[in-house]
Amino acid sequence: MIKILIDCFGGDHSPQANIDGALAALAKTPDLYLIFTGDEKTIQDYLAGKTYDAERVEIVHAPEVIGCDERPIDVIRLKKESSMIKAVRLLRDREDINAMVSTGSTGALVAAALTRIGRVKGVIRPAFCPILPTMDGGIVGVCDSGANVEVTPEHLRQFAIMSSLYMQQVYGIEKPRVALLNVGKEAEKGDEIRQKAYILLQETSEIHFVGNMESRDLLSGSYDVVVCDGFSGNVLVKTTEGTALELLKKLKKDIYSRTLYKMGAFLMKKMFADEKEFMNYQNYGGSVLLGTSKTVVKGHGSSKAVAVEKCIEQAYKMEVSSLSSKMEEIIMKYEHYEY
Amino acid sequence: MIKILIDCFGGDHSPQANIDGALAALAKTPDLYLIFTGDEKTIQDYLAGKTYDAERVEIVHAPEVIGCDERPIDVIRLKKESSMIKAVRLLRDREDINAMVSTGSTGALVAAALTRIGRVKGVIRPAFCPILPTMDGGIVGVCDSGANVEVTPEHLRQFAIMSSLYMQQVYGIEKPRVALLNVGKEAEKGDEIRQKAYILLQETSEIHFVGNMESRDLLSGSYDVVVCDGFSGNVLVKTTEGTALELLKKLKKDIYSRTLYKMGAFLMKKMFADEKEFMNYQNYGGSVLLGTSKTVVKGHGSSKAVAVEKCIEQAYKMEVSSLSSKMEEIIMKYEHYEY
Repeated sequence: MIKILIDCFGGDHSPQANIDGALAALAKTPDLYLIFTGDEKTIQDYLAGKTYDAERVEIVHAPEVIGCDERPIDVIRLKKESSMIKAVRLLRDREDINAMVSTGSTGALVAAALTRIGRVKGVIRPAFCPILPTMDGGIVGVCDSGANVEVTPEHLRQFAIMSSLYMQQVYGIEKPRVALLNVGKEAEKGDEIRQKAYILLQETSEIHFVGNMESRDLLSGSYDVVVCDGFSGNVLVKTTEGTALELLKKLKKDIYSRTLYKMGAFLMKKMFADEKEFMNYQNYGGSVLLGTSKTVVKGHGSSKAVAVEKCIEQAYKMEVSSLSSKMEEIIMKYEHYEY
Repeated sequence: MIKILIDCFGGDHSPQANIDGALAALAKTPDLYLIFTGDEKTIQDYLAGKTYDAERVEIVHAPEVIGCDERPIDVIRLKKESSMIKAVRLLRDREDINAMVSTGSTGALVAAALTRIGRVKGVIRPAFCPILPTMDGGIVGVCDSGANVEVTPEHLRQFAIMSSLYMQQVYGIEKPRVALLNVGKEAEKGDEIRQKAYILLQETSEIHFVGNMESRDLLSGSYDVVVCDGFSGNVLVKTTEGTALELLKKLKKDIYSRTLYKMGAFLMKKMFADEKEFMNYQNYGGSVLLGTSKTVVKGHGSSKAVAVEKCIEQAYKMEVSSLSSKMEEIIMKYEHYEY
């Protein structure tokens, strides 16, 4: 049985989306067991009348609510009875629990996970790895997308090892093509960190390093995972999402400006719906935090049920593939490496 | 008379696009004088038969060609008779010349400009400021987009002063809204550099600092210029361009997949052409290098005539607005500021 904690609050559509998504995952996965954290009465009321296997669902009462502008450090210290921090503490304390999924504050979740849960042996810094759709119908991971705004070349090598394993084990990509985000393709591009990382990545035989990637090629389908510091990774992911959304918005506005366009768009209705669906990040799950000793998945704050379901699927797959132990094995080979 | 050097070679469509764009600018601007650098015979042959005011055109022979994979440092040292380096040297040596436009190697141009041309008094690091279209029909500048992969808070403050003046003087934006690129809106987000820069920007009364910007909001129309280090600025600009291009490519492919869609797209032909034109960076000119003592504009390697013409227009406007002296005046107020 894979036991996964669901932080039922903290998202824009909580707790409904979180619970609905969780029950959908539960129905599909016979050896999945869920522990909901949050206000017990609210959760019970919402569950009443739903059809699900109650034998595989547990509720842990956590009445406190985290405010939007609370600092992560205060959340950890002062909001121990919030649905998120309660889940983190259960994940740490209960050996039978494997993973957790949250759609709450990223800052609080990272801080709590890093200080309370511990890391896979040898891992210096856990890192986020969200998934984006590529234009050829595939996917690409970006690691790190924001957990570490400052990095060293050694961190980048670890991000590469962890995310390559993740793409392989969870998404079935046999030999993930790993790239380093840089301002040019040539090995000597970028700052000293990038130049040194390039050499380290080349030397790491466990990954298939294909060189530097310029950000304009992210969606080309030529790469399976891109390694970067959390600052530029955050820019990379959010710019991609933002540009796609703004463009679709503009198209829609322009279509409504002329009757002829409206007629044309009517014929293309299904196509536009498909494009929108294709670019809807809800369909690609959440950001997995790689390198913590137990699996933590961060869903987008605006996650609907389908996104929460995907997050649970990601957590489940990470657990059944024993990602952590494989990670440890490779990371430990390089642990004492000094550049 | 404003005298501008045109490096006629080094772009994908050189020398035709460079010369055609230059002649178009010449025809529109009575007090513009052009100096073409490059192989004299090739330029003369291409000019033969064209109608233009020959009194305002000069050719300086520069026969050497820069290879794609030559290192910037070698280009400066060994290719003194190339069209780019010859232009940089003329810009430095001839007092009557105001500016230069090049579509050649960015690395070589930055290195040559920084080592040969000198800076505006007080400027620590010149920075690039390309312009992107926003979804409400406006524009937004990004400074720095790649000249400096590592920066300090003081550099970021200077980028803000320079780019704010640029948006004001060249694009007529009275009080440019200046934002700092960061991973979140709150003042304490990001690394130490960002946190300190936030404070410096707040203290700088000559600019209208509106706070941190998350990269997903770049095209929203809420900002006139975004300040960042050259690494993340490069990611920001190239991701935006790349996502827009990949999306348009996908739309096109999907349209061709079904007859119904082709019919719909036929009705929307003009709209799609407009979108393509809207997102065509050729229409927004080049990246101006801000902070050098004489104006240097870098056009995209793939610049066609219209883009080269825009680059010349940018250089011309910078010169007639006396941007450098205004820049110096503000920058010098903060020159001895130690954080």
